[in-house]
Parts: sequence; C-alpha cells; structure tokens
Amino acid sequence: VITRADCLDRDRGDRLAPLRELFDLEAVDREGLIYLDGNSLGVLPRKTTERLRQVISEEWGAGLIRSWNTPRPGSGQAAGWITLSQTIAGKIARLINVNAREVVVADSTSINLFKVLNAAIAIQQDTGRTRIVSERTNFPTDLYIADSAAKAHGFELVLVDDRELAASIDNSVAILLLTHVNYRTGRRHSMGELTHAARAAGAIMVWDLCHSAGAMPVDLAGADFAVGCGYKYLNGGPGAPAFVWVHPRHLARMDRDRWRQPLSGWLGHAAPFAFTPEYEPAAGIDRFICGTPPVLSLSALECGVDTVLAADAHGGLNAIREKSIALTDLFIELVESRCGDQELSLVTPRQAEQRGSQVSFVHPTSGYPIMQALIARGVIGDFRAPDILRFGFTPLYTRFVDVWDAVDRLTQVLGQGEWRDPKFSERAAVT
Amino acid sequence: VITRADCLDRDRGDRLAPLRELFDLEAVDREGLIYLDGNSLGVLPRKTTERLRQVISEEWGAGLIRSWNTPRPGSGQAAGWITLSQTIAGKIARLINVNAREVVVADSTSINLFKVLNAAIAIQQDTGRTRIVSERTNFPTDLYIADSAAKAHGFELVLVDDRELAASIDNSVAILLLTHVNYRTGRRHSMGELTHAARAAGAIMVWDLCHSAGAMPVDLAGADFAVGCGYKYLNGGPGAPAFVWVHPRHLARMDRDRWRQPLSGWLGHAAPFAFTPEYEPAAGIDRFICGTPPVLSLSALECGVDTVLAADAHGGLNAIREKSIALTDLFIELVESRCGDQELSLVTPRQAEQRGSQVSFVHPTSGYPIMQALIARGVIGDFRAPDILRFGFTPLYTRFVDVWDAVDRLTQVLGQGEWRDPKFSERAAVT
Repeated sequence: VITRADCLDRDRGDRLAPLRELFDLEAVDREGLIYLDGNSLGVLPRKTTERLRQVISEEWGAGLIRSWNTPRPGSGQAAGWITLSQTIAGKIARLINVNAREVVVADSTSINLFKVLNAAIAIQQDTGRTRIVSERTNFPTDLYIADSAAKAHGFELVLVDDRELAASIDNSVAILLLTHVNYRTGRRHSMGELTHAARAAGAIMVWDLCHSAGAMPVDLAGADFAVGCGYKYLNGGPGAPAFVWVHPRHLARMDRDRWRQPLSGWLGHAAPFAFTPEYEPAAGIDRFICGTPPVLSLSALECGVDTVLAADAHGGLNAIREKSIALTDLFIELVESRCGDQELSLVTPRQAEQRGSQVSFVHPTSGYPIMQALIARGVIGDFRAPDILRFGFTPLYTRFVDVWDAVDRLTQVLGQGEWRDPKFSERAAVT
Repeated sequence: VITRADCLDRDRGDRLAPLRELFDLEAVDREGLIYLDGNSLGVLPRKTTERLRQVISEEWGAGLIRSWNTPRPGSGQAAGWITLSQTIAGKIARLINVNAREVVVADSTSINLFKVLNAAIAIQQDTGRTRIVSERTNFPTDLYIADSAAKAHGFELVLVDDRELAASIDNSVAILLLTHVNYRTGRRHSMGELTHAARAAGAIMVWDLCHSAGAMPVDLAGADFAVGCGYKYLNGGPGAPAFVWVHPRHLARMDRDRWRQPLSGWLGHAAPFAFTPEYEPAAGIDRFICGTPPVLSLSALECGVDTVLAADAHGGLNAIREKSIALTDLFIELVESRCGDQELSLVTPRQAEQRGSQVSFVHPTSGYPIMQALIARGVIGDFRAPDILRFGFTPLYTRFVDVWDAVDRLTQVLGQGEWRDPKFSERAAVT
C-alpha cells in the first residue's frame, strides 16, 4: 500500500523538484490548491510578473515605438520586439528537437493550422488525392479548420476512429492530421510509426503538438508540418501565441516557388518596411507570420518557454517524461485502489508509452458534479463532455504528494457523496 | 507670429488637458521627449501597469483556469476572460458609433480583414462582379490580404490612385476596400460620400479604421464591414488585438444561411464547449472569433480603450477631433513659417476636413536622416519610404507646447544641418 509518506519520499528524491521554485505558487499553496489542469492552462512562472512589468513600463512606457528596434532605455537590453517571435521560436525549436529557423511563433493554433493545411493542400493539389484524414475525437478546432481548408480547395475531411486509423492510411490520403496526445483520453499516438506510415503512403503528415510540446520529447523526423500551443505545458499564459514548424524540404520548395500562405500579412513580407503594394513572401519560415504580434502576450510566452528549458540542467525533457509517467502511474494506481468501488473507469491507456501527461476517467452519469465537488475541495481538474474527468500532470511543478492528496480528496468527494449537492450540477462554460 | 507662450496659453484653455494625467508619461517627460508617433503606437495608459499586474498575479497566478469563468480570487471582480473580447468590443462600438453586438475583438487587423473580405466575396459571389477596388497607397497589408482573398475566389484586386477613385466606382465593382485615413499622407476620405457611392453602385463597402478609431468620430452609416487596430489611437499596447464590425443586415443573413468564415476556430463555434466534431458558427458577430484570445494583450487593450472613453466627460470624440485639427493646423503653420527655406513640402491636405490626425512632409532626398536626427533631439515621428516624414498628433496627451517645441527642434536639425552626420543615415527597420 502506498502511503503519503512514500510520496513525500519520492518528492525528496525527485531531480526536477527544485524547478517548482520557478513558479509563483504562493496563492495556490496558501489556498491549499492542487492544480491538475496545467494541460489546459500552465501556472504562472515567477519571472513573468517582473518581466511583464519591465515590458510594460520600460519597453512600452519609456521606449515607446523605439522598442521595436532598439534595446530598452536604461538599458539592461531586451526590447527589439521585431525579432521577439523568432527568438522565442528558436527556444521552442529546442523543445521539439528541430532547427531554430524552421519554427515561427504567431497567432493561435487554429490560425496556424489554417496556414499549414493550405501549404499541405498546395503540395498535394495536383496528385489527385483529396482526402484529409483525421480522428473523430481530435480537438474540434483542428477539425473545424481542416474542414474549412478542405472545402475551399475541393478536398474532403474524413474522420475515422482511433482503431481504424492504421488501416485508413493508404494511397488515397492527401494529408494525415493528428494530435499527438488526445485532449480527452490522454491517448498518445506513436509519432514515429504514424509518420512513417503516412510517408510510405505518400501522404503529408501534420502533427498538432498542443498536448505534448513541453511535456515530453517529440520526434518529428520525417514529418512535414506541426503546430502547437503556448499556454499549456509551455506556461505562456492565457491565450499565449502558438507556433508552427515546417520541414526544411518544404521551406526550400516554397522559396523556389515563391509560395505564399493565404494569410499574407505585412510582417510575413520579404521586406515589410519597403511598403510595396505587391506581396512577396519572406524567405523560409518567416512567410508564416501574418500581422503585428501581441507583444505583451509574446513576452509572457518567452518566460514560460524558459521554465521548460530550465529543466535541461535537470535531465531535460527525458526527465520530465519520466516523472510524468511516474505521476500518472501513481494517480491511476491510487484512484483504482482507493476509489475502486465507485463507477469510475479509466479511459487513458494503462500502458505508459501510449499515454500523454494526463489521466482521464469516465463516470457514466455524474462526471460534471463530481468534478465541481472536487474543485470545491481544492483539486482542480476539468470535465469534458459528455462524461470525462480529466487530470493533467505537469512534472515541473506537480509533486507526488499532490497526487496523493488529490486522490485522498477524491475519495472524500465520492465516498461521502459530496457531489450529490445540487449546487454542483449548475453548469458554466469550462475550458 | 505664434510664440511658445501662445501655445502654453492654448494648453491652459484646452478642455482635454486633464486627460494627459491618464497616461504614464513620466519617463517621456524626464527624457524631454516629444512623442509624435501615437498613430503608430499609442503611449502607456497609467492604469495598464496595475491592471496587468492584477491579471497576471491574481487572475492567472491565483485564479488559474477558473479565471475563464469566474471573478478573480479575492474578489474585486473582473476575470471572466471568456467574455473579455465581447466586453471590449462593446466599448469600441461606442467609439465607432455602432451597436455593441456588431463588433468583436480578435486576432490582428490583417486576419480580421481576411475574414471580412471572405464575407464580402461570399455576398458578391453570384453577381458576376469580381473586382475588389482599393487604393495603390493603402496600407500594404490590406492589399496583400485582399489579393490573397481575391485570388482564392477568382476575384481580382484592382488598385487605383486617389484621384481616380471616384470615377472607378461603377457597376463592375464587387468590393470597395478603403482606409479612412492614409497611413503615409494622412489624407482622410469622405467616408459618407464614398460609402454612398459604393452602395449606389451595388458594391460592398469595407472600411479600415486603423488610423481613425479613437482619433475622430467615424460614420459607418450605410457601410458593410470595418476593421481596425488596437495599438494606435486606442492605446492598447504593442500588437494589441484588432476589431471587426459587421452591419447587422449581413449578420442576419449569415445567421439565416449559417454562413461561416474560413477561420472557423473553436471559439467562434455556437457551442465551443460541446466539443462536437462538426462546426456550427456562433450566431451574429461571434462567428468572427477564431482561437483562444491572448488575454494579457487583450486586458491591456481594454485599459487603452478606456482612455478614449474617458474623453466622453470632456466633449468626447468631437473634442478630440477639434483639438486634432488645431494641433495639425498649428504644426503645418509653424513648420512652413519657420522651416520654409528648407526643401520640405506638405503632402497632407491643407484643408482640415481632408486630413486625419497626422501631418506628413516630403523631403526629396534626405527624409530618413532628417527623421533620425530629429529623434536624436527627442522628437519621435517616423519615416515612411521613400521620402515621407510623418508626425502623429494624439489629442489625449499631445499639448500645443509640444508642437511648438517639436518644430523648434526641427529648425535646429535642419538649419544647422545636424542630419548630415553620417550616423543618421544608417538604416534599421522602422515601424
């Protein structure tokens, strides 16, 4: 039997433990909160508060328009906003194991996916293939955007179930669009195998890394495009800008063909400050930039990305992944051993390699009020319709004892039927 | 002859003068800076610093994921990020004299224009008209995006000179896309007349309000769509999100046809948290939302918009416009009387009603180094290739004495040939 003391022991032996200090968790700890929703919104890095004060007061307030091109008045450096997207992109590139000049930070995941799918469609335009294959349970925005891009070009979006996926990759597929880790079930695809299958079938492989970037190593070898989110495991703050990766073989071809993506805004122009009436795409990945980036949100994203890079001195993404598996294993074991008489059933794969950094349980009738009652007890996970209780584990700041305490509170909520209080059934939108 | 004392007198009589206190200009005043670039990046509102600290520490840091739907812990209210875009949109609606539920805040101007042009193209799709008419000197991103949207639908972008504009509005025009105030020359179109001409010709009228929202009243009566920028006269901070306005007759039709814009991201869905695989556009203007908004930048935008709304108690946009005309008149008069022997020539219309809130002069050979030398003397305007010196006047914080001092420094830069120092010819990207 695992005890709370065992968990405290494991925390003492955790090489990532010192990194918790990088986050401002004072209010969270004061409230006695256990935050298991970093897969939806990462917590506040400690340095973000001071960095944003600096950006606001010194770079914007004192530096004003000059801060686009020069260090801030003072100068302890920084500002130079015009290259901020690229600076952050270089850092994200390290986290997804690609080269700096293959990534750009811009806009939202949805918008970046629109750009990328248009690029993929252009590649397949003359092949006669028109099928964009994705999973029915993929995060909906991916499906909405894919459907939109498909319809605009005479392509069609074909949705398949997870189990049909391998069989559906054949010579008729133009584009395979998959999210590495499923947002509901936490199921993690074998990135290498699926990329290989897509390429062997002549399809373009597009990965959505929203639930993996910053949470585990990713292997984009052989893949064509990827997009990902800044506000989950990258701790960039609510609605932080997103990123795009494009394989250099496509960038070279785009340069050769002077291909432009449809959201051809001025900052993706080869010479934005020449103000010419004709669009000429920037070389390489910069053509995926559109308008002026939201500098405040972008600056917070950089602080968030730095928290993940700080793990490099503590084993990096491999250590993060290892602890993620340990945390999720522990959670599954404790829930099943301590709440086994309840109607919870695990929907996240039991095998660690098939799992992301989250664990989801289904409750057949009462997932929503159970999660609300649990939140009222200070354990923040979330509910995903129709029946999923979702818990995210973020190794940079989640402790083993947090897992123990969370399950302990869950036993109280379930065992004592706290969730049956009608107030927990009142609905609000939940992200 | 106008003296500095005359200008100080005018400042004492200025009913908008108390509003300068709303901005954090301490560093600017300490540096002795005269900032005439609020048409490119508005200055920092005083309350933004504290508001962003609150959003970062309390709403994100302590409230975490809960802040999407609930007031912040504490609670002095706010948070409820999920409706923040709409809240700000309601405020911007007041500034452009339309109804709250016709505006939405999202993404960048470029991206919003892409959405709007797709809507306009859909309306004209079956009319046989395929010409999108705009001005050759329109801000380039508008032309790049219009060209992209046009090409995707078999339309064509036709660029005309300012003088040919009236004559070019005929029954062949599908869409007329104009920026109210030209970013280079400061020339201001007659919005009412052009909208009327467009409608009479059966064209869809799309206005870009980037250089007018917050700087003057605008009259969208009869127009179809508008977009605008948050970081110029709205003081929303670098790269602040932008806005979209759609006439309710089109919103009604979109509802009837269940029309979707191409950037159909999840937050523009009728029920984002139902997570259905099929896209169903939200009713009304909300269908123009795409992905998760950058909450930090969005929160700063709200503070900026509030600075313009604060003028309501001091005569509002009419008072702002009146002072804008007085400032620009004064600047033109002083430059021409004091620098008349230099090779500067006015390109902004001399008639106030044809002018926005900026004044531009051309120098035939040396505009760039002159502007750099002027910036070195603490007067911040900007240079727009190939030959324009651009000065923006923002009545909420620009004083008459600032205009006098700016011209005084300009006489020194020009009269003593300071700009001939080779260091002022070194080029950097300038926004």
